Amino acid sequence: MPNAVLLISCPDRPGLVAAVASFVADHGGNIVHAEQHVDAALNVFFQRVEFELEGFGVERQAIARAFAPVAERHGMTFDLRFTDTHARIGLLASREPHCLVDVLARTRSGDLGAEVVAVISNHDTHADLAAFYGVPYVHLPVTAQTKPQQESDVIARLRSLDVDLVVLARYMQILSPAFIDAYRHRIINIHHSFLPAFVGAKPYHQAHGRGVKIIGVTAHYATEDLDQGPIIEQDVVRVSHRDAVADLVRKGRDLETVVLARAIRLHVEHRVLIYGNKTVVFT
Amino acid sequence: MPNAVLLISCPDRPGLVAAVASFVADHGGNIVHAEQHVDAALNVFFQRVEFELEGFGVERQAIARAFAPVAERHGMTFDLRFTDTHARIGLLASREPHCLVDVLARTRSGDLGAEVVAVISNHDTHADLAAFYGVPYVHLPVTAQTKPQQESDVIARLRSLDVDLVVLARYMQILSPAFIDAYRHRIINIHHSFLPAFVGAKPYHQAHGRGVKIIGVTAHYATEDLDQGPIIEQDVVRVSHRDAVADLVRKGRDLETVVLARAIRLHVEHRVLIYGNKTVVFT
Amino acid sequence: MPNAVLLISCPDRPGLVAAVASFVADHGGNIVHAEQHVDAALNVFFQRVEFELEGFGVERQAIARAFAPVAERHGMTFDLRFTDTHARIGLLASREPHCLVDVLARTRSGDLGAEVVAVISNHDTHADLAAFYGVPYVHLPVTAQTKPQQESDVIARLRSLDVDLVVLARYMQILSPAFIDAYRHRIINIHHSFLPAFVGAKPYHQAHGRGVKIIGVTAHYATEDLDQGPIIEQDVVRVSHRDAVADLVRKGRDLETVVLARAIRLHVEHRVLIYGNKTVVFT
Amino acid sequence: MPNAVLLISCPDRPGLVAAVASFVADHGGNIVHAEQHVDAALNVFFQRVEFELEGFGVERQAIARAFAPVAERHGMTFDLRFTDTHARIGLLASREPHCLVDVLARTRSGDLGAEVVAVISNHDTHADLAAFYGVPYVHLPVTAQTKPQQESDVIARLRSLDVDLVVLARYMQILSPAFIDAYRHRIINIHHSFLPAFVGAKPYHQAHGRGVKIIGVTAHYATEDLDQGPIIEQDVVRVSHRDAVADLVRKGRDLETVVLARAIRLHVEHRVLIYGNKTVVFT
Repeated sequence: MPNAVLLISCPDRPGLVAAVASFVADHGGNIVHAEQHVDAALNVFFQRVEFELEGFGVERQAIARAFAPVAERHGMTFDLRFTDTHARIGLLASREPHCLVDVLARTRSGDLGAEVVAVISNHDTHADLAAFYGVPYVHLPVTAQTKPQQESDVIARLRSLDVDLVVLARYMQILSPAFIDAYRHRIINIHHSFLPAFVGAKPYHQAHGRGVKIIGVTAHYATEDLDQGPIIEQDVVRVSHRDAVADLVRKGRDLETVVLARAIRLHVEHRVLIYGNKTVVFT
Repeated sequence: MPNAVLLISCPDRPGLVAAVASFVADHGGNIVHAEQHVDAALNVFFQRVEFELEGFGVERQAIARAFAPVAERHGMTFDLRFTDTHARIGLLASREPHCLVDVLARTRSGDLGAEVVAVISNHDTHADLAAFYGVPYVHLPVTAQTKPQQESDVIARLRSLDVDLVVLARYMQILSPAFIDAYRHRIINIHHSFLPAFVGAKPYHQAHGRGVKIIGVTAHYATEDLDQGPIIEQDVVRVSHRDAVADLVRKGRDLETVVLARAIRLHVEHRVLIYGNKTVVFT
Repeated sequence: MPNAVLLISCPDRPGLVAAVASFVADHGGNIVHAEQHVDAALNVFFQRVEFELEGFGVERQAIARAFAPVAERHGMTFDLRFTDTHARIGLLASREPHCLVDVLARTRSGDLGAEVVAVISNHDTHADLAAFYGVPYVHLPVTAQTKPQQESDVIARLRSLDVDLVVLARYMQILSPAFIDAYRHRIINIHHSFLPAFVGAKPYHQAHGRGVKIIGVTAHYATEDLDQGPIIEQDVVRVSHRDAVADLVRKGRDLETVVLARAIRLHVEHRVLIYGNKTVVFT
Repeated sequence: MPNAVLLISCPDRPGLVAAVASFVADHGGNIVHAEQHVDAALNVFFQRVEFELEGFGVERQAIARAFAPVAERHGMTFDLRFTDTHARIGLLASREPHCLVDVLARTRSGDLGAEVVAVISNHDTHADLAAFYGVPYVHLPVTAQTKPQQESDVIARLRSLDVDLVVLARYMQILSPAFIDAYRHRIINIHHSFLPAFVGAKPYHQAHGRGVKIIGVTAHYATEDLDQGPIIEQDVVRVSHRDAVADLVRKGRDLETVVLARAIRLHVEHRVLIYGNKTVVFT
């Protein structure tokens, strides 16, 4: 039997933990995980509560309605999700294969708790790879002239496939505000620098030029401001004067792969709450 | 105003989070942090709840009594602590100064939320250091013959000083079972290896001999079995063929200092629950 | 034009660096990398010298003979290799796909400077994967009874394919001393623990039982003693009480993949020298 | 017997390693460490050669003169240093004690191979600490009006003490170009961010505002451009939404201490070569 996950945020005040826990307990439910966080400066309360549907006295489709009065009483915004509904991912890729291979392989081995419903790319390079993993490959080439039309096509395709989450697996195109808005807080990008250092193009070249001793990568939600969105996960690796730009690229690739996978997992397991330009990540 | 901290463990069953949260809410309290963990294999529930005393409807000294019926109903073992009672640390040291200097400096700067009430050493090497930090220095030399008597003297001194926590800051003596028992789960040792690798003497020599590429250190509670106690915190650092034993010692020193300080902080902030030979650490 | 790589070891004494560098310079060569290491305790000198063949006054196939007098004069053992000869890898796999997918994908993208000439497995699970990457898949099932025969078949196949390096990509069979001997110092295994902790079976279960706060993996050369061979590379990741064994397995998988790939790269780029049970790794 | 260290840079060309190694060998010397690096893009060769004075056929004070013809022939810039000449450090501090305590304690235990000849501070807070470690404490208060004069006094004091290296141990004053110039490439600053992210004031506040998941610190040579100088060493630590600014400050403190100490050690052991705005660090 799957579990239910409540993601809650509201102004902080006494009694919130008790209100949610009592709601679950009063219907005979068992909480398996509960994490909360209070941003003391902003006075906001965040919570993730996961409880067993087994033995819970409210039908799955009626839980949100049953919880609504609790939420209203405390001014809560909430999302209700279930651990057996796998996210439908639209994977946007370009020429670099490493993130693409990795996400597809994890999906096949069942490691990720999500499904890739299409690979969309402006190149036809990786059609065979998608075919091997049994995932439709949508080739939508782009030029400076066709960019708006191509983007519309991408969005149309994502919509027709009922995509929950857009993953930019080293997709090298900048998305328009309209695209961002259509999938707000549901587009994960992997940027190949330790943000906020080295925003924009060629971050490994920038890092090499600056002579840093550590490089990093950042998975974040795409927003209208390039590389400025809420950060989900970051990681780093040590480099030295011996590393040429090509070595940074190679070392960074392993980071990109792993950090993107972690961010997708956190998102699809409903562990991320966004507020302002930041995230609360309940691991 | 300080906060109260409840540390709870009991058999897992529905309603535990609600029971504790309702106890706090029913007395007008505000929970500022609450973390729980369920060991699914052993079916044990662990919780750390921190709530404000300000506005709480029960006097500080009456809270434990007020909570007792809740605990009894659910079979809970609990500890109640307050964030304004600083742990009284007895620091046992030998010749190596780095952990000693570090703990004393952190105490002085108020960084640790604890107080060192005595430095006890089998050497007189660091009396001036303790004096500088205004901490009594107890020199209790030890030989193979006098070991049992010396240990009794150490324990007597710790008792007379009403010590809450014994910190072995690279104290090179093995403690007897009687000592362990007198301060069970209240003796923190820093072992200079990544346990369980390299138990016992000269772990850096062992690591060098084995040709490892990473070394580590481990802070744990001392038990009757040498270097086998519940682990609180570990950290590691990269080494290479270029590092002689002396380099491992030097690199390890910085780890020992930081990891011991982290473990002390976790303990004195009531973030550690011990079960079996393991710990739950609510960070 | 490729480079030549000299890997040298000998008793340490004055003049070694000059002797090798002069050999290169006297023939008009240009050193692009030169690293040396002296094990002061054992008085052994190790060196890796990479120089350009372009402009070098000795034919490629005559270099070893030309260097022999220098080596003899100083008691040097040496290997001569060229950066354009890609290692031929025999990949031994079992049911777990992650290391297999990763090595094949890196080979395809040209990232590894090596070629996988066969995947050999006791299961037929991953034949399609090998086929996708255009690599022959050899299915050699094994039972307790057929183990010696199966191993002979594996060795025969490796020999017929002229394999330079055997990679155990989570191959769960223990190799016989005869197998080890046939490919001494040319079998890389990835062990899923931070050796020497948790030797043998089910290391993640062992790590979970011990309650460690960090887990690791180790790439090493297989020897007759299980998990005791010379370590090439290790890496670690943080875990907590929240991580069940399945989480350790999942987190460990990403480490296994990356650490195995790093070890293969170091080996095929001739950066590893073995002495006693340790390695010198020139990165 | 101490060793000699040659730090060399010049345009890259064949024969450089041989030229230096032959110089040492021809005078009967024994090289104990030799590292070189070629920046292929800029065609610059860098080398650090450490050789034993014992048995070397040239007097210590005559070595530089003896090497001069070799240097001239190859267009080399070089520095000659000896491992028994300990750097004389002038430590500039402000109110934060952690770096100050740490450097003084390392000096006392002989861990650093350097000597602190004065602590200079614009506050009188830590006079007792310096006194405990037997180091003169120079209190030079500063206001907006007296800043130029105070800086002149600082420089005068450093000069009169014949300081080799100025260490800014969380000294919160910006140095004038004249100061920078007087000690070019001999002023090490510890900046409490992972540069180039969060230049300038209050980097932990900036990091908290941006919602990063990892924070870092950077040791670099101070130049006229604030926080833009050549980076010597960096390190990082993981943070989360649970960490308030005060937690970042606390976690960062341990990094600052360790990274500053590493940078000082690298500098005083003559392991750092500066070129352009970058460093070659031979570890």
